[in-house]
Amino acid sequence: MALGKKRYRAVVLGATGVVGQKIVQLLMRHPWFDTVALCASGAREGRPYREAVGAPSAAWTACEAPDLPLRAAEPAGVEADVVFSALETAAAAAVEPRFREAGFPVVSNASALRMDPEVPLVVPEINPGHLRLADSQRHRHGGFVAANPNCSTIGLCLALEPIRRAFGLRRVWVTTLQAASGAGYPGVASLDLVDNVLPFIRGEEEKLESEPLKIFGALEDGGIRPAAWKVRARCNRVPVRDGHLLCVEVETLRPLSEEAARKALEAWRSPLGNLGLPSAPERPVLFRPEENRPQPVLDRDAAGGMAVTVGRLRVRGPRSLAFTALVHNTVRGAAGGTLLLAELLAATGRLGGRAGSSGRGGVQRGIRNSSSVRSAP
Amino acid sequence: MALGKKRYRAVVLGATGVVGQKIVQLLMRHPWFDTVALCASGAREGRPYREAVGAPSAAWTACEAPDLPLRAAEPAGVEADVVFSALETAAAAAVEPRFREAGFPVVSNASALRMDPEVPLVVPEINPGHLRLADSQRHRHGGFVAANPNCSTIGLCLALEPIRRAFGLRRVWVTTLQAASGAGYPGVASLDLVDNVLPFIRGEEEKLESEPLKIFGALEDGGIRPAAWKVRARCNRVPVRDGHLLCVEVETLRPLSEEAARKALEAWRSPLGNLGLPSAPERPVLFRPEENRPQPVLDRDAAGGMAVTVGRLRVRGPRSLAFTALVHNTVRGAAGGTLLLAELLAATGRLGGRAGSSGRGGVQRGIRNSSSVRSAP
Amino acid sequence: MALGKKRYRAVVLGATGVVGQKIVQLLMRHPWFDTVALCASGAREGRPYREAVGAPSAAWTACEAPDLPLRAAEPAGVEADVVFSALETAAAAAVEPRFREAGFPVVSNASALRMDPEVPLVVPEINPGHLRLADSQRHRHGGFVAANPNCSTIGLCLALEPIRRAFGLRRVWVTTLQAASGAGYPGVASLDLVDNVLPFIRGEEEKLESEPLKIFGALEDGGIRPAAWKVRARCNRVPVRDGHLLCVEVETLRPLSEEAARKALEAWRSPLGNLGLPSAPERPVLFRPEENRPQPVLDRDAAGGMAVTVGRLRVRGPRSLAFTALVHNTVRGAAGGTLLLAELLAATGRLGGRAGSSGRGGVQRGIRNSSSVRSAP
Amino acid sequence: MALGKKRYRAVVLGATGVVGQKIVQLLMRHPWFDTVALCASGAREGRPYREAVGAPSAAWTACEAPDLPLRAAEPAGVEADVVFSALETAAAAAVEPRFREAGFPVVSNASALRMDPEVPLVVPEINPGHLRLADSQRHRHGGFVAANPNCSTIGLCLALEPIRRAFGLRRVWVTTLQAASGAGYPGVASLDLVDNVLPFIRGEEEKLESEPLKIFGALEDGGIRPAAWKVRARCNRVPVRDGHLLCVEVETLRPLSEEAARKALEAWRSPLGNLGLPSAPERPVLFRPEENRPQPVLDRDAAGGMAVTVGRLRVRGPRSLAFTALVHNTVRGAAGGTLLLAELLAATGRLGGRAGSSGRGGVQRGIRNSSSVRSAP
Repeated sequence: MALGKKRYRAVVLGATGVVGQKIVQLLMRHPWFDTVALCASGAREGRPYREAVGAPSAAWTACEAPDLPLRAAEPAGVEADVVFSALETAAAAAVEPRFREAGFPVVSNASALRMDPEVPLVVPEINPGHLRLADSQRHRHGGFVAANPNCSTIGLCLALEPIRRAFGLRRVWVTTLQAASGAGYPGVASLDLVDNVLPFIRGEEEKLESEPLKIFGALEDGGIRPAAWKVRARCNRVPVRDGHLLCVEVETLRPLSEEAARKALEAWRSPLGNLGLPSAPERPVLFRPEENRPQPVLDRDAAGGMAVTVGRLRVRGPRSLAFTALVHNTVRGAAGGTLLLAELLAATGRLGGRAGSSGRGGVQRGIRNSSSVRSAP
Repeated sequence: MALGKKRYRAVVLGATGVVGQKIVQLLMRHPWFDTVALCASGAREGRPYREAVGAPSAAWTACEAPDLPLRAAEPAGVEADVVFSALETAAAAAVEPRFREAGFPVVSNASALRMDPEVPLVVPEINPGHLRLADSQRHRHGGFVAANPNCSTIGLCLALEPIRRAFGLRRVWVTTLQAASGAGYPGVASLDLVDNVLPFIRGEEEKLESEPLKIFGALEDGGIRPAAWKVRARCNRVPVRDGHLLCVEVETLRPLSEEAARKALEAWRSPLGNLGLPSAPERPVLFRPEENRPQPVLDRDAAGGMAVTVGRLRVRGPRSLAFTALVHNTVRGAAGGTLLLAELLAATGRLGGRAGSSGRGGVQRGIRNSSSVRSAP
Repeated sequence: MALGKKRYRAVVLGATGVVGQKIVQLLMRHPWFDTVALCASGAREGRPYREAVGAPSAAWTACEAPDLPLRAAEPAGVEADVVFSALETAAAAAVEPRFREAGFPVVSNASALRMDPEVPLVVPEINPGHLRLADSQRHRHGGFVAANPNCSTIGLCLALEPIRRAFGLRRVWVTTLQAASGAGYPGVASLDLVDNVLPFIRGEEEKLESEPLKIFGALEDGGIRPAAWKVRARCNRVPVRDGHLLCVEVETLRPLSEEAARKALEAWRSPLGNLGLPSAPERPVLFRPEENRPQPVLDRDAAGGMAVTVGRLRVRGPRSLAFTALVHNTVRGAAGGTLLLAELLAATGRLGGRAGSSGRGGVQRGIRNSSSVRSAP
Repeated sequence: MALGKKRYRAVVLGATGVVGQKIVQLLMRHPWFDTVALCASGAREGRPYREAVGAPSAAWTACEAPDLPLRAAEPAGVEADVVFSALETAAAAAVEPRFREAGFPVVSNASALRMDPEVPLVVPEINPGHLRLADSQRHRHGGFVAANPNCSTIGLCLALEPIRRAFGLRRVWVTTLQAASGAGYPGVASLDLVDNVLPFIRGEEEKLESEPLKIFGALEDGGIRPAAWKVRARCNRVPVRDGHLLCVEVETLRPLSEEAARKALEAWRSPLGNLGLPSAPERPVLFRPEENRPQPVLDRDAAGGMAVTVGRLRVRGPRSLAFTALVHNTVRGAAGGTLLLAELLAATGRLGGRAGSSGRGGVQRGIRNSSSVRSAP
């Protein structure tokens, strides 16, 4: 397959935020993408990127950052094959459509357009078929926006996918213990997290209760029919740097045992296996049998931060399963997830790029039976 | 009422642990109890208590501790009206029955005998009528053991009580974010709680799933018929010193609105109001309307640590209520709860003591209609 | 003495910040002061104070806050006997002189005017005689500004005072481990303090190296001649809510032993003893002999947060003493220190107030031999 | 040079502790060493190592650990070229001499024998020439012990070395902010480090005040004459997982400017450069110009945790320099430092091993002019 030989020019919007910086870092070592421009929505145009992120207390080593000037987040004059957006919600709502109208593929980590009926909201291992919405968008707008889900949503959906495939889902309760980095920088005040927990994260429960239903929804008549089950979420912020912990209780459609649930989790492999996506873990879900795992410090970096770790399985009724999952919120849940989505777009021929395409159809066939299962509950 | 004039001689078993020290501290300023002996289960007999708790890193100011020698935890030679037990489980299982056989009333914070059918497991504002089990025990053993529930259980039950009274309970899901002090000292290693969360606390989920059903059970034929509803619990340890946070989802028997739930929480008053118990808060449950409360640092000391704070109400179905509650685990959940139970035993004439009793019957009447509601679900 | 009968009308500038809120809290229970107005430098004029401080994540229970509208920080229309300033530096530099020109006594926690030659910088137990500068100011400006020192400075100076009196000072090295609350709210980002230490606090080392020399300076010719010794400081921020820890190494003028140093620390009593100041601790410095004290959680609230705790004495040369000190930075180091200074101003007849004064001269005599020692090194 | 072709059989004593586990991890990927036996001093003989370190809360992924049974820490039956010791002090004092008498080279991280006149205490970049003491030991005992210094000592000495070379040292004051992992596991209780700092670490100040003088001492008449300058240390434990921060004040022999100090720090290169030691960083000291560096989370992993980061330079007198340094305490300060010392022993022909030696003399010459400067102050 000739994929590896293609190169894609990448632009990053919101490049100075926590997620934006992480995307830039990941792009620097990426085999497919070349960073050609970095944009910030503020008035820092022209300032060297290195200096903008080398400010006191930034979690970035300035001298390693790319030597590019910051640009305004405007499509005029931009030449690129893909635009990554790590903008904040309000800026994203205004800016992303402008890049779409200018013909760019926009891969966004922002929440602004996630629930827009035109926009595919994609966890590549779960609903790659939803990217057909990107094709319809391109038809209407010239470019398209494809959205990476909320960080907790991604962890929840990946942990649920093997359970859903094996037993079906009816109801999901999730209580989160989320890391500080999820709020960006400066984000949460230290006085709110030293010897304390915040029992509220604005907008987070709503996202966790709606996004999974779109992701697990069925592609029908050019739109998504949401999954029929329900999610109820409660979100907390805890004094942890990285790694969202999710305590999940599931009511399944079909009966299950702890042993069967464990086997389902251990057996599941990425359906993207044949595509050779650089960021795709072979096993998106890792099961750990120890009674005290997953833990943020021990498990967040599993598979380079791209795998979700699941443990503490407990079956307490014929259709009732409890488990605890951990997702690295700024890697799999944000920057890494966004990159993986861009890789999937590239591998399915949706990005353009500067060398011969391998053709979308062939690649699409590489995704094992994924589109056929999307309409299951 | 002459209650205030009575004095009770108190002994503390396990006086050097985190909860034991807290009980000793509370007893020092207590208007009813005089500490006459302090016992530790280890081989520290004869050592001055001050020195035993003044060890490096103890959370106690040694020079303020009582000037008493440590004794072995044995009934021989003990003269007291009440024995407080803060022993660890194994020691409690061995030692508490010996004090009971020697004729002492034992008020225990240990988990060893909580689910013993003979032993009342009491949250004074919820099931004071269960103390009749203490009377039957005394008949059989000479003395009795009355048990204070698990720290998270107490917080959960107090928060549930107004909801139960107003709407009935069918199912309860609870995810906890528990403080480090709940594991005693030295307890949890700092390497497990700096930048981390532990997703497991041994035995804790089992306690949270069984104890509430006994507390809310009905006194029948000299025993307790457990409540018919179910609790499902998931317990985590977070980097907080004191204060267990409980994220609760409740399925009620009768329909409710957020407004009705709020009113039920705000209207509930302690049924112990007439008894003049020094440690009893007038309002055992405090409702806070702010979207980001309760928080451990801001709310754990409400009513001297004896009240449970409830917030983040959310109704998501006709019989579905979510809320977040906070309980000070070493005060209301342990030392303070144990003392309050002893006060209730004193006020109902079950402790002896050194001055004229006011008679149990009269005091029992002071508990507003509490026994009549105990068998409701 | 009739002091207790006098009442003083108090205004608080910067009332919504961390220190401002603490001042308001302390004033609410204060026997001498009545809060008549609360001001904020921002554009929140007219907004109820309760609401302004009840914002999400504020460390204040809104319903307990005074029911007063916020005012602009301007002297016009203000009627008060004393003005407390908890403004930030820039605002203080602009606003405090305006109140002074309008005839008010301003007691300031801001750093803006601390090193101004006209302004007394006072730790009441150390250099009360410097308040004569306030009298000269009043002569020139109508009112005056008296400044409370930096929070770390206060802890350092109080810990040094008994050593200075007994052995004289030649050089002082201090490394600080400062709490998050010292940076206000939101202040330090949690990502900077979870699993981390910040090795830098802007402007702090400069304050610690200059303010003590003014405080220990001699009043000469209507100004202060700074003390002749040197301070070298290094300041760090650590993940602690409240309580600055100071690791101090002192070179003294006269030889000392560990025993002699300990005796000097234990023997020192507040020279303000006769004045009956409500916030003055009898022993401003508490010595602890345990090898692992002082600790922030165990010692910051000593004497209601108004005493400095000193421990870990070590003499390593004839004139070389090491010790560790702890000061509650928002109480003794800020709000409480500012109040104590106001009490001293009141007790020395410098505030006006609404009932018969007891006369300054008599009170001044109540300060034991403090002015006579001020010019010693 | 044929060094890379030689293989050394390694045994680890104390393999289940925090440092022992880290040594085992580093050995697994090491190009020179093969782990042939793992020993623990407790009664766990025969138990699989994987299981011993897979216990709840261990910071190790059990399934990645070597599949070896634990052995008693006894020389009988051991066949190895090098013995690594991560034993606790008392065990090390008893066990290490037994391995030495049995003819083994012991590379120890324990403090037991560090100050023993026979034992070289070595920071490879600073005093490799002291390894001649190992040769004398071997002559007397058959084997030898070579000691890795205390974790803070290593950080301090490496940061001082470029300053010492350029300006000479007269006095050193150091205040440490040390990470929790320095105390092992379980180590420090979380109740001592949540919202707290411990102002005391047993034995640590003594080590920091004595070890550097031996390291910088001169090899004379078969022993070490300690350096003539003085160190004064104050040690604190802070809520950080890894990375000891050192606030250092130095009085130099010769005058210096901030610029000259910076140049000295930036110019220094490892004198081990020619030896090809796998763990040796090219630049053992990294200078950072930002005002708020070094920080534990940002700098502890510099050069794989083997480099010390120095920042916050400040010159406040002609011979007075302040700086802040950071060392990864379990890597450079313990496991990594111990491995580097073993590599140096191997490269200088002191370990035996299973292929042709490259000869000690030739390698010794590879160390740039290091032995000739050892006797300078």
